[in-house]
Amino acid sequence: MKHAAQPWFEIADDCLRAGGRALTDLAATAGRTPFYVYDRAVMDRKVEALRRVLPAEIHLHYAIKANPMPEVVRHMLGLVDGLDVASAGELRTALGAGADPADVSFAGPGKTEEELEYAAASDITLNVESEREIEVLAAIAQRTGRKPKVAVRVNPDFELKTSGMKMGGGPKQFGIDAERVPEVLRRIGALPLEFRGFHIFSGSQNLRPEAIIEAQQKTVALAARLAQDAPAPVTLLNIGGGLGIPYFPGEQPLDLEPIAANLRALIPDIRRAMPGAEIVLELGRYLVGESGLYVCRVIDRKISRGQVFLVTDGGLHHHLAASGNFGQVLRKNYPVAIGNRMQGSEREIASVVGPLCTPLDLLGDRVELARADIGDLVVVFQSGAYGFTASPLGFLSHPAPIEIVV
Amino acid sequence: MKHAAQPWFEIADDCLRAGGRALTDLAATAGRTPFYVYDRAVMDRKVEALRRVLPAEIHLHYAIKANPMPEVVRHMLGLVDGLDVASAGELRTALGAGADPADVSFAGPGKTEEELEYAAASDITLNVESEREIEVLAAIAQRTGRKPKVAVRVNPDFELKTSGMKMGGGPKQFGIDAERVPEVLRRIGALPLEFRGFHIFSGSQNLRPEAIIEAQQKTVALAARLAQDAPAPVTLLNIGGGLGIPYFPGEQPLDLEPIAANLRALIPDIRRAMPGAEIVLELGRYLVGESGLYVCRVIDRKISRGQVFLVTDGGLHHHLAASGNFGQVLRKNYPVAIGNRMQGSEREIASVVGPLCTPLDLLGDRVELARADIGDLVVVFQSGAYGFTASPLGFLSHPAPIEIVV
Repeated sequence: MKHAAQPWFEIADDCLRAGGRALTDLAATAGRTPFYVYDRAVMDRKVEALRRVLPAEIHLHYAIKANPMPEVVRHMLGLVDGLDVASAGELRTALGAGADPADVSFAGPGKTEEELEYAAASDITLNVESEREIEVLAAIAQRTGRKPKVAVRVNPDFELKTSGMKMGGGPKQFGIDAERVPEVLRRIGALPLEFRGFHIFSGSQNLRPEAIIEAQQKTVALAARLAQDAPAPVTLLNIGGGLGIPYFPGEQPLDLEPIAANLRALIPDIRRAMPGAEIVLELGRYLVGESGLYVCRVIDRKISRGQVFLVTDGGLHHHLAASGNFGQVLRKNYPVAIGNRMQGSEREIASVVGPLCTPLDLLGDRVELARADIGDLVVVFQSGAYGFTASPLGFLSHPAPIEIVV
Repeated sequence: MKHAAQPWFEIADDCLRAGGRALTDLAATAGRTPFYVYDRAVMDRKVEALRRVLPAEIHLHYAIKANPMPEVVRHMLGLVDGLDVASAGELRTALGAGADPADVSFAGPGKTEEELEYAAASDITLNVESEREIEVLAAIAQRTGRKPKVAVRVNPDFELKTSGMKMGGGPKQFGIDAERVPEVLRRIGALPLEFRGFHIFSGSQNLRPEAIIEAQQKTVALAARLAQDAPAPVTLLNIGGGLGIPYFPGEQPLDLEPIAANLRALIPDIRRAMPGAEIVLELGRYLVGESGLYVCRVIDRKISRGQVFLVTDGGLHHHLAASGNFGQVLRKNYPVAIGNRMQGSEREIASVVGPLCTPLDLLGDRVELARADIGDLVVVFQSGAYGFTASPLGFLSHPAPIEIVV
């Protein structure tokens, strides 16, 4: 099985290009390898492709946990309708990028009192994940005279099937169990809180339209049912995300058409049950994952017992997910290429490894590549999300990679 | 199956103690949670226990990649005979702690030219991992007039059986294939390099004495065979490490006696083949892993569909290995307890999770604990190695944990 074709980056003179420049040029101006490069034009095209097919009623939010680099957040802010954050640190990044607090929401179990206080003072919407958070916010309201904006994050009674990450169905640390929500809504109505609506997230990184469609139908039905117990009109309905990108051999890009058609069909139901609600699709990886490349340099070329090893200056410590150590049960290869000789004059099977003293430090396990030598650039595609920040950068005290935006 | 009993930390008034102080006191003086605490007395006892049984000819080196916190490195330096580093950053830490370059060695595939240059200038021993490294060092020697010290890291023709991490046998990025070494030794003899000996590492984190014994026997036999082709007398034989600590239910502490007995039996063979060689056992995790606790605080207590979740301010981003996302195929629980109520008046089954928006953020999956409430301290044992630096500290932009040494 092969990786899906790479549609986002051009090749000229057998060299990959990003932001209109050859990778070798980018490496020279980055000053050193390894580096991550994020291409604004790819983010633009991803958002455009969504806007083209989705009904206008669906607003897009960027979940900055996927890539919180300030310049990426600033660029995304210009493309989408709002930002979603998952910590006080991310909230600082969102507000620092210039986001309107009215378009920012904060989800995440285990928000500390300091985080709740800061979020309430910032006048953003808090997706409350527990009854405790509601009481803490009410106490803040009483103390400060503010009226914190809250939406209820619901732990649904269904899950997004065959999802990379299941986040609903069964017992979960996320949100409030759907069956408890009516009582919680009554409590919110009795407190000095501004009720905004619901956040229902059932899973992520899904490549099967029929699974996403089914989850979205159930999400809307659940929200409509819960809206009957709402203490005030629903002004915000966050239907989650779940849209995946192809990482591994055999995976194909998601077909948006059936998902868009289903959402079009759901709009009247939503309007009926929640007439004034802003409908938000919250996406992180889907918007920025394909915009990023991780680039490292071949430091050594070794042949051990007949197998070729390209030893690079990058690895697991910079890109944990590509090494297969971040939530994967069976390790699979990310798409990898030799960036400065995409086709090459000769092809070979080689393993791409990093400089760490552990066999886990593997970026490509016996992949077909152009024959590479010391100094060549290895590229890992699909590296724009959950790369830099999701990696143990301090492991073995190597320098951190550089991040650039083009 | 249960976790092995915790022999390293006292309990008084139902509260865990480290460094002679109650965990609640440590949390107060750390200033905030989460934090790692490393206990010097545990490191002392681990080294003492080894010295007591090992033959005096075996020197102990600390592999600082296990825990490079400067104060830990400084303390270990006072206990062991040398330090092993895996990057230029670690070398700076080792020399900064006051290590004698004569007792420092540097291993790791993919050393850059800058790293080789720095190591040669520091006059430490380089465990060369490839023929390229040898040629680069020879060029440095010619340019600078120095004579870099080299030992050959050998990719053995066997592996450490049932090891946590296999690092020998078959094609590998580590070291030079055993069968290529005689030719490489001849090349080293022809270059302006000071030959020191061999570094043979076949695996790590092993809890079966018979597997370690077999690997050490094969290591000595291989070194003795290779020594016949050495260009100069062998002055250093690093026989690797491999000694494991118990992490998971059912695992028991390693029995050192048979390993020590086997090493005693091997000394005459080593002396015969390599009369002047310093024999080094290189250990990281075994020396410091048990000295460390990771401590986080319960922020929320949730019951979702009958299951108890303790949501803490710490998690995967601080302690990736404990979440099961670092080289584990099947997730298992590290030993976890409620530090300020070790027994408690009531017990329950609870899951310990972190504040991240991912189901991977799980520190304890349905473990038996004292009934805990908001404010209580969760302790993860066996956290002194591959904790802080092996974790994606920037993930979701939460504050990094504090590290303290007692």
